[in-house]
Amino acid sequence: MAGSTGRHAVRFELRQQSKSTAARLGRVTTKHGSFDTPAFMPVATAATMKGLTPDQITSTGAQIILNNAYHLMLRPGAERIAHFGGSHAFMRWDKPILTDSGGFQAWSMSEGTKISEEGVEFRSFVDGSKVLLSPERSIAVQNAIGSDIMMAFDDCPPALKPTTPVEDPQLSRKRRSDPAEHQKRLEAAIDRTARWLERCVAAHARGDEQGLFGIVQGGTDLTLRQRSVEQICAFDLPGFAIGGVAVGESPDEIHRTVAAVAPMLPSDRPRYLMGVGYERDIVAAVKAGVDMFDCVLPTRNGRKGYAFTPTGAVRIRNACHTLDPTPVDPTCDCLACAGGFSRGYIRHLFMADEMLGPTLLSIHNLRHFQRLMVDIRAVIGDDRWFDLESRWPVLGTPATAEVDP
Amino acid sequence: MAGSTGRHAVRFELRQQSKSTAARLGRVTTKHGSFDTPAFMPVATAATMKGLTPDQITSTGAQIILNNAYHLMLRPGAERIAHFGGSHAFMRWDKPILTDSGGFQAWSMSEGTKISEEGVEFRSFVDGSKVLLSPERSIAVQNAIGSDIMMAFDDCPPALKPTTPVEDPQLSRKRRSDPAEHQKRLEAAIDRTARWLERCVAAHARGDEQGLFGIVQGGTDLTLRQRSVEQICAFDLPGFAIGGVAVGESPDEIHRTVAAVAPMLPSDRPRYLMGVGYERDIVAAVKAGVDMFDCVLPTRNGRKGYAFTPTGAVRIRNACHTLDPTPVDPTCDCLACAGGFSRGYIRHLFMADEMLGPTLLSIHNLRHFQRLMVDIRAVIGDDRWFDLESRWPVLGTPATAEVDP
Repeated sequence: MAGSTGRHAVRFELRQQSKSTAARLGRVTTKHGSFDTPAFMPVATAATMKGLTPDQITSTGAQIILNNAYHLMLRPGAERIAHFGGSHAFMRWDKPILTDSGGFQAWSMSEGTKISEEGVEFRSFVDGSKVLLSPERSIAVQNAIGSDIMMAFDDCPPALKPTTPVEDPQLSRKRRSDPAEHQKRLEAAIDRTARWLERCVAAHARGDEQGLFGIVQGGTDLTLRQRSVEQICAFDLPGFAIGGVAVGESPDEIHRTVAAVAPMLPSDRPRYLMGVGYERDIVAAVKAGVDMFDCVLPTRNGRKGYAFTPTGAVRIRNACHTLDPTPVDPTCDCLACAGGFSRGYIRHLFMADEMLGPTLLSIHNLRHFQRLMVDIRAVIGDDRWFDLESRWPVLGTPATAEVDP
Repeated sequence: MAGSTGRHAVRFELRQQSKSTAARLGRVTTKHGSFDTPAFMPVATAATMKGLTPDQITSTGAQIILNNAYHLMLRPGAERIAHFGGSHAFMRWDKPILTDSGGFQAWSMSEGTKISEEGVEFRSFVDGSKVLLSPERSIAVQNAIGSDIMMAFDDCPPALKPTTPVEDPQLSRKRRSDPAEHQKRLEAAIDRTARWLERCVAAHARGDEQGLFGIVQGGTDLTLRQRSVEQICAFDLPGFAIGGVAVGESPDEIHRTVAAVAPMLPSDRPRYLMGVGYERDIVAAVKAGVDMFDCVLPTRNGRKGYAFTPTGAVRIRNACHTLDPTPVDPTCDCLACAGGFSRGYIRHLFMADEMLGPTLLSIHNLRHFQRLMVDIRAVIGDDRWFDLESRWPVLGTPATAEVDP
């Protein structure tokens, strides 16, 4: 029977609170087991984390992963995943899975996209066919995938002056960069997000197994954020997310917005900051009281030959690594570094376009982020943030130093 | 000090002889451990088995792998591999490695190739530079790679009427298809192969660690084969190979030649049939007394979406697998089949161009060939060949049924 928030399918236990910051230690429990928070969720877009077996994902310490509803509804199709018993059985991952709603990808990855009160219409990247993604369809897709945590279908406009190019089908670039137009767009988006959440809750058919998280919008406007929080938190949901802060804002804008919005969210529910980010962004958000993170950076940059290390990014193709017998990060315990694969060898794999190169750097980068989370969780207990920053010098580097190919 | 056959770096123990056939059970021991024979050696061309970690290779049951000297001398370069302590350390594989000489690839994979008494001149596929590969250079490359078994640098002409297109820089296609010209070419090749073997032995600088195998040529001409055997077996080498039977001959020609040539080789040394092949070809050669095999089929076909099974090849992209929840081969114990990855899921990975698809099918196909070898070794002990053929129906299928994309 449809109509649920899945309030009891996802339980949050708040275990410890930092004294000097708003950071907190917790544990989220789902039908497929628990994960510790603050948590980093790597992304397995098409029911596979590119080039990695589930065992290799597990070896990185990941306790929960993310699937993209947008990709899976188009290929192989949500109904087909249901035929195989859901994404856990399909991709052989027995721990928790979170699905996004598909809305963000529908307008950011497709051409000819139109947003209306009904939903988002776009052309499939697989065969060019017209697809309508509505709150009801998004929930049906996520019900079919069988994720432990589902995300509400929201309206997520890009930033006023995005630092990276993003499209908004609702506004032309010219109108979008007009502050007054942008403000109207943001306002409309939060109200629509609230109306769509109501439709998501009404459509949710598996509330006993899947929890539905709401998403707060409002861009960098804290008044709008407050209004969105009031609208979204009026629903008795098992968790809440901060959306619309990884859609082209500067790191400073992200930090300021998150620091203000996280404390507005109920303290007895997990708080999820969507699509963020670099190590520094994660630590800042943890200090603001955020519990969950996802990002494609470790796998996407790994596939392109960029390794994360505690002292900053390493471009493995650089000639300086040619004869280097040391691992990517001598302090790392991942399968690549502890397995003795040298920078020189991994560079060779990338120069020869060998698949094992992306696989090894993805494993390393995923472990890098999980080790950061382990250290963050250890620090929250005794509030020794200085220890964290001395172990992770990259936290002190400016945003301009980051490598994003 | 140069000049050695590496006679004692590779030891062969003949353990059991089939009563009804010339098949034999044995064990080859090198400085990096032992492997059981008959053995199948998968190919790790560029010091990596495409998409697989060494742990995944080990999981398939491989006890020895092959590296290609041709690829490694061009990228990253033999001296660079020596800098990293040889291929074992470079690619993190601690079991035996065999290297080919590079000669076959030099004339089959390059353009503008010229063969002379000095060696083979070709253009590098990496940067187009001119490279001379001589017996001395091939041995120096293999010494630098540090393989346990090195192959002599031989002259290997293609078949008279190749079933697949192969080039011979020594002869135009027209002259090559003239039987008299082809016969002269074969004769010249065996004599040159013998002269080059002498130069290989003289150049071998690490005879205490690396064994050098000689290669018998002569095409499908058994008189020439006999002469080549006499020339090559005059050297006290730790093993002998049958070359020139996977260069465009029909399966029947291969079987006939191998059945005649294998018994000509010394029974107290391992016999290696280069580049062969399908399951049926392997079993036929085992019955003729061959001990070692290598082939790219399991990995190359796996990457292209073809799975080997005991009942024949499966094209995983075929629509009939779309909803199939069963593994590629329900009798298989590989990481993919025993891990519960369904045909439907692996098909999805191939349709979505996801790296995990090639990885899983490569693992499965490699395990398929190793399971065949396990069964072959079990059968040799009690001569129950009928059991083998009933367990592997593919052995009874005609050559035309094979799928080679």
